[in-house]
Amino acid sequence: MAGPVQSIERAAAILRLLAGGPRRLGLGEVAASLGLAKGTAHGILRTLQHVDFVEQDAATGKYQLGAALLHLGTSYLDVNELRSRSINWADALAARSGESVRLGTPLEGRVLVVHHVFRPDDTLQSLEVGSLLPLHASSLGKVLLAFGSAPLDEALEPAPEAYTRHTLVTRAQLTQALADVRETGWAAEVQEMSMGEAGVAMPIRGHGGLVVGAIGLSGAVERICDGQGRPRPALVTLLRDAARAISRDLGAARW
Amino acid sequence: MAGPVQSIERAAAILRLLAGGPRRLGLGEVAASLGLAKGTAHGILRTLQHVDFVEQDAATGKYQLGAALLHLGTSYLDVNELRSRSINWADALAARSGESVRLGTPLEGRVLVVHHVFRPDDTLQSLEVGSLLPLHASSLGKVLLAFGSAPLDEALEPAPEAYTRHTLVTRAQLTQALADVRETGWAAEVQEMSMGEAGVAMPIRGHGGLVVGAIGLSGAVERICDGQGRPRPALVTLLRDAARAISRDLGAARW
Repeated sequence: MAGPVQSIERAAAILRLLAGGPRRLGLGEVAASLGLAKGTAHGILRTLQHVDFVEQDAATGKYQLGAALLHLGTSYLDVNELRSRSINWADALAARSGESVRLGTPLEGRVLVVHHVFRPDDTLQSLEVGSLLPLHASSLGKVLLAFGSAPLDEALEPAPEAYTRHTLVTRAQLTQALADVRETGWAAEVQEMSMGEAGVAMPIRGHGGLVVGAIGLSGAVERICDGQGRPRPALVTLLRDAARAISRDLGAARW
Repeated sequence: MAGPVQSIERAAAILRLLAGGPRRLGLGEVAASLGLAKGTAHGILRTLQHVDFVEQDAATGKYQLGAALLHLGTSYLDVNELRSRSINWADALAARSGESVRLGTPLEGRVLVVHHVFRPDDTLQSLEVGSLLPLHASSLGKVLLAFGSAPLDEALEPAPEAYTRHTLVTRAQLTQALADVRETGWAAEVQEMSMGEAGVAMPIRGHGGLVVGAIGLSGAVERICDGQGRPRPALVTLLRDAARAISRDLGAARW
C-alpha cells in the first residue's frame, strides 16, 4: 500500500499555516514555521502558486492563499450531503424559532460550520460558513464530543482556551458536561465563548445511527435561555424535530 | 531555482477534477482521467485524505472534496484585498441601483466570483461567491479580457460555448466587442449567457492602474437595459462611481 506523499503533506501544512495567524508570510517565515529548508519551502510555494493555491504579493513578495481554493471550498459545499439534506429544514427551523441556525462537522479538533441561516430579522449578521469553532466552548462541538464524532483528547490538547469565566476548561468539567449531553440528547453553551450569547445543539445521525454532524440554534442568552439559564423547552422541541427530520433524510433508521 | 513539485501538481489536478463534473469519483476514474498509474493516484488520494482535502465515501469507496478546503476557501476571502476594500461600496451600489452586484477576478480562463451582494428585495437568490463564470459570456469576463487581466486565447481555447443565440463565440466577434469595451469603459452582456438576463461591468484598478478585477450589476434584461437593449445610463453612472471609489481605495492614482 502506498505511503503518504511527503511533499503533499508539506504543501497542505503551508496552506494551513497561511489560513491561520497573520495570513501573509515571507519565504523565511514559512520555512522556519514548518522546519523546512528555504529551498524546499520555495519549491513547494512556487508549485502552489503555479496551481493558484497561493498568491505572491508583488510589492512585498509575501505569500497568501490563492483564488483556486475558493472555488474548491464552495465545490465542497455543493457535494456535502449533510448540508444539502439540511438546507430546507434549517430554513424552516430559523423561521419557526426566530433564531440563527448553524450546522457543524468535525475538522482537525474543531467544528467546521458548513451551513448558517441568519436569524430572520434585519439585523447585521455575518456569514459563518467556513469558520472554525472550538469543540469545548460551542454547543455544536459538545455534541460532536459527546457522541464520539470528535475525540475528547482533541479538545484538551492543546489546553482549552478560557474565553469567559464560564468556559469549561478541565477534563473533569468536560467529561461531566458530555455525560449530561448524552443523557438529555442536547448540548447547551451558555456564555462560554462570548458573554451575552448562548447556544443549544443536537446530533444529526446518518446510516447506522452514526453521528455525522450537529445542528444548533444560537443567539442572545436571554432569548435562547429561560430564567434558570437553561435552553427554552420550546426551542429544544423545534431543534429536535429538525435534527430528527435531517437524520431520517440521511438514512438514519431510528433516532 | 527550484522546479515545480510534480506530486503537488498532480494533487491539485485531482482536486480540480473532483470540483468539476460528477464530483464523486472512484480510484480508477481518477487515475484514468489524469493518465496516472492506479498506485500513483492512490498514494496521492490517501495523502489528500489524510490532510482532509479529500473524503472517501464509506459505502461506495468513491472520493470527493474534503472539509479542510472550505476553511481554506473562506480564509482566502478574508485575505482578499479586492473583496475587503469593495464590501461597503458594493453594498451601497446594490442599495442605490436595486440590482445584484458581483465582483470577479480571473482564475484559470474563467471569472471567479469573490463577492456577491443580493438584489435588495425579498426574492429567492443563491450566493454565487466561489462560482466560475465564462470570460466570453459575462460582463465581468469581458472587462477582464478587454483590459488584459485575462488573455483572449484563454476564452477561445477550448472553443467558447454558445449558451444562447446571442453568445459571442468567434474571435472576430469578441475582438470587436472588447474594442467597444475599451472605448466606452464598460462591458455589457445582454442575454448572452441566459435568455432574459443581462449585466454590465467595469474594471477595478489597483496600484499603477493595473486592472485587478471587475465589478458588475446583473439582473432581468428589462431592468438592466433600456428600450435599445443597452445598459441604462443611470445604472452605468452608479457603477462607474463605485468602480472609481474602490480603485482609489486600492491605490489607483488616477482612474
